[in-house]
Amino acid sequence: MSKEQRTQVSAMLRQPRPDGPRSVEAIRAGFKAMMARMVVPDGLRITRTTLGDRPALHVEPGTGTRTGTILYFHGGGWVFGSPETALSLTGNLVARTGLTAYSLDYRLAPEHPFPAAIEDALSAYRALLDSGEDPSTIAFAGDSAGGGLTVTTCLAARDAGLPMPAAIVAFSPGLDATRTGESMDTKAGIDPFFTRESLGRTGAMYLAGADPHQPMLSPAVLADPTGFPPMLLQAGTDEVLLDDSTRMAARARAGGVDVILDITADVPHVFQSFAGVLDEADQALDRAALFLTQHVHSPDSAATSAR
Amino acid sequence: MSKEQRTQVSAMLRQPRPDGPRSVEAIRAGFKAMMARMVVPDGLRITRTTLGDRPALHVEPGTGTRTGTILYFHGGGWVFGSPETALSLTGNLVARTGLTAYSLDYRLAPEHPFPAAIEDALSAYRALLDSGEDPSTIAFAGDSAGGGLTVTTCLAARDAGLPMPAAIVAFSPGLDATRTGESMDTKAGIDPFFTRESLGRTGAMYLAGADPHQPMLSPAVLADPTGFPPMLLQAGTDEVLLDDSTRMAARARAGGVDVILDITADVPHVFQSFAGVLDEADQALDRAALFLTQHVHSPDSAATSAR
Repeated sequence: MSKEQRTQVSAMLRQPRPDGPRSVEAIRAGFKAMMARMVVPDGLRITRTTLGDRPALHVEPGTGTRTGTILYFHGGGWVFGSPETALSLTGNLVARTGLTAYSLDYRLAPEHPFPAAIEDALSAYRALLDSGEDPSTIAFAGDSAGGGLTVTTCLAARDAGLPMPAAIVAFSPGLDATRTGESMDTKAGIDPFFTRESLGRTGAMYLAGADPHQPMLSPAVLADPTGFPPMLLQAGTDEVLLDDSTRMAARARAGGVDVILDITADVPHVFQSFAGVLDEADQALDRAALFLTQHVHSPDSAATSAR
Repeated sequence: MSKEQRTQVSAMLRQPRPDGPRSVEAIRAGFKAMMARMVVPDGLRITRTTLGDRPALHVEPGTGTRTGTILYFHGGGWVFGSPETALSLTGNLVARTGLTAYSLDYRLAPEHPFPAAIEDALSAYRALLDSGEDPSTIAFAGDSAGGGLTVTTCLAARDAGLPMPAAIVAFSPGLDATRTGESMDTKAGIDPFFTRESLGRTGAMYLAGADPHQPMLSPAVLADPTGFPPMLLQAGTDEVLLDDSTRMAARARAGGVDVILDITADVPHVFQSFAGVLDEADQALDRAALFLTQHVHSPDSAATSAR
């Protein structure tokens, strides 16, 4: 059955789409429409708020609240997406952990290129700390470009002298603007979302001429993750960004960081979005939830069990 | 507190021990004494039985039994160890999952060198299948040399035309008799258990002149894991065998296998043995238990949650 689900999801993603460059508005609208089909768990309390001068969605579990906060960064190539388009992912983490999330509406390119998104993410983290939250109760989570922000925001926090959060969870993170991963070529034609060309178009909007050879743009190639909190990197084998995760994991291991590289075969970029449809998505989110509850410190976080 | 625990465990392992070659009897007795200090969960039902003509321990949970079987392979360099020395690991998996385990007393070198252990492991798996167990309800698990057997027994099962089990869980598996992992050198002096020399002594007993350049002895370097079930590989960064896991994971990814490479920093070989003492050990076992319950098929295995 699960193989059928994988095939079904894959076929859905391979529907014909307009070729070639599209306007930023068309990209944003298309992504919004696609993500609106994802399943958001019932029973969450979702409210609009602000965090560090940016809009954010505050996502609380309906029952069984656990002390601690997920600071979530949505995907979308730093050009599209919003807290709403990532609501299935954020909501599933909240529902599975009992933690509360803030999903940040950081500034997007091309209107606000690099490093605007990182500045906003850092401001949001600083706002949580300034509100009295202990860093040991805060985890960063995100998907795709937002997965990249989980890492670069830790770099920025370290540079700013701020403490590290308790954990990082990244779904198919974008961690290499140099695009030098082997999977950029070995997964070309297999990845149903991305090509080198399509990534190059949105990537250029984010870079706006900046040199990609710097840790804040290509942490999987250039960052020193020494001192980072435990990291969970999840990716699929059907994605050109696969080696962003494998290389980041290797750097983390070398830097003495606890790191789980969790790869699911034959599934696409951010397959966790298919929670409720694809068993592998739900299982991956369950593993992410266990990881979060293991590392986000809270008085009520006794050792969990899979039973 | 956890850092204190790590230091405590590390100091314990660095106690002076006799240098140089020891007799097989001394190695076996020393390992038995060390492992007798490990904590076995309460409430298990443990009985002696046989499986495929070899002795085995049958380990059942006290309560909350779940359909499915763990076929467990103990560690000890294919020269020492027994189901009893691995009872903390086996028992903790049973207690956390509700699954039943058979821990196999496979034949040891130098009396019975390669491939005796693999033959016994395959016979045990065949005995489970012959008894009517569905392969989708069987997982292989093991530590160190026994972690190696989780992989090589799958290779042997495939060669024999048997179906794959549902999952593989390996703690610090030994997967490379060629000893070509970078960690063999980069972790020399950091690993509190092993040196290239000590591994060479027991390794030579197991090889008994066999060429290490073959998949059944060095699967991390030479095996084709295509068609393997989902794999969870856990290791510490303080071990010379670390890259046995990293290279096996890379091969599995390339072969289209679901694979989780779960690395904990600053802990030694098979740190999961310190369950009940070291938080990282209990957390790693909880992740292994969730992985097992996600992949061992049973009618009662509804989606689990970390809450």
